[in-house]
Amino acid sequence: MAPVKVFGPAMSTNVARVTLCLEEVGAEYEVVNIDFNTMEHKSPEHLARNPFGQIPAFQDGDLLLWESRAISKYVLRKYKTDEVDLLRESNLEEAAMVDVWTEVDAHTYNPALSPIVYQCLFNPMMRGLPTDEKVVAESLEKLKKVLEVYEARLSKHSYLAGDFVSFADLNHFPYTFYFMATPHAALFDSYPHVKAWWDRLMARPAVKKIAATMVPPKA
Amino acid sequence: MAPVKVFGPAMSTNVARVTLCLEEVGAEYEVVNIDFNTMEHKSPEHLARNPFGQIPAFQDGDLLLWESRAISKYVLRKYKTDEVDLLRESNLEEAAMVDVWTEVDAHTYNPALSPIVYQCLFNPMMRGLPTDEKVVAESLEKLKKVLEVYEARLSKHSYLAGDFVSFADLNHFPYTFYFMATPHAALFDSYPHVKAWWDRLMARPAVKKIAATMVPPKA
Repeated sequence: MAPVKVFGPAMSTNVARVTLCLEEVGAEYEVVNIDFNTMEHKSPEHLARNPFGQIPAFQDGDLLLWESRAISKYVLRKYKTDEVDLLRESNLEEAAMVDVWTEVDAHTYNPALSPIVYQCLFNPMMRGLPTDEKVVAESLEKLKKVLEVYEARLSKHSYLAGDFVSFADLNHFPYTFYFMATPHAALFDSYPHVKAWWDRLMARPAVKKIAATMVPPKA
Repeated sequence: MAPVKVFGPAMSTNVARVTLCLEEVGAEYEVVNIDFNTMEHKSPEHLARNPFGQIPAFQDGDLLLWESRAISKYVLRKYKTDEVDLLRESNLEEAAMVDVWTEVDAHTYNPALSPIVYQCLFNPMMRGLPTDEKVVAESLEKLKKVLEVYEARLSKHSYLAGDFVSFADLNHFPYTFYFMATPHAALFDSYPHVKAWWDRLMARPAVKKIAATMVPPKA
């Protein structure tokens, strides 16, 4: 069987969400770079993969998908085994908790944490823009409130959806990984259960492998 | 069996996402209002349902859930029948297309359309704030580009995920319903396949029932 293809720069957070899932399930895949400098994401070839011209896109034979969370779930369903079941869709309550914390990542955690990554890392190092310290300060305040809830949750369970690792945890990896390269990484030390959860995630072989492809940009 | 409970104002878009799914599957449910004026959403009772103090929350016996998309998927899975299967999770490709267009709603369609609803409807009529016409104009430009992609998709299939109605379509209902009460509703007339899709959704008995509970605020 031809390996599935992921289109987009490997270091992109949304590409890393997909490739991490592919690594977790042990699927064969190929990453095909999309060159933003030449506007390749708006080329007819790429628009056929994703009509909105965004990355990542994904190809499995004739099937073309986009939106990183949708692609990831396809991957986790397709390659699911009794040992590697990261969506838990056969268990109504477990699947619901995976969905709850996946949505919390998308709508609460990430909107607090990602502006810090943009301001401290992506803007200065990739776009030559200054860090807006006001945005950073406001986001840090929001993030602290979010991490308090995470600390309470992770003091009761080893992972977000329960006592099993799931897609909900994996979703937190790409942005948190880059957050740990900002000057604010030590914030996590104030939340020992969150820190221990993060260390458990970072110890996973699939996470280590993808982390190695996500070199934080340097000045 | 005691009916499940949805906590939050019935006219809230995210509450309507959940109640629409409950109506589609024919489940018995009760809406319990949460009074924002008395800060009930930050009360200990509500924080036990949702540690982030947001609405909707959901209760099914001992199970407490939050995040409207996660609750909705729980409902659609729990009450799934051969006739009413709005997630299509037993079909890998169909489920993926449902997920793709559910994510497009959350990350592309809604960010273009919802600011128009806030500026033209919620802000002036519920908060006494003026409409920021610059935000409206920018959002309309974004929305037109999004609707072009929708028009192309819906000229090939009767619904977003394919030739079957799904959770992906239902997700578009709450904000689009309020958009149709703004002065910009006629925009949809320029996209005949999108307009026909919207009319098909509005003709559904479940949609009609929920629409009747979502009275657009008046000045």
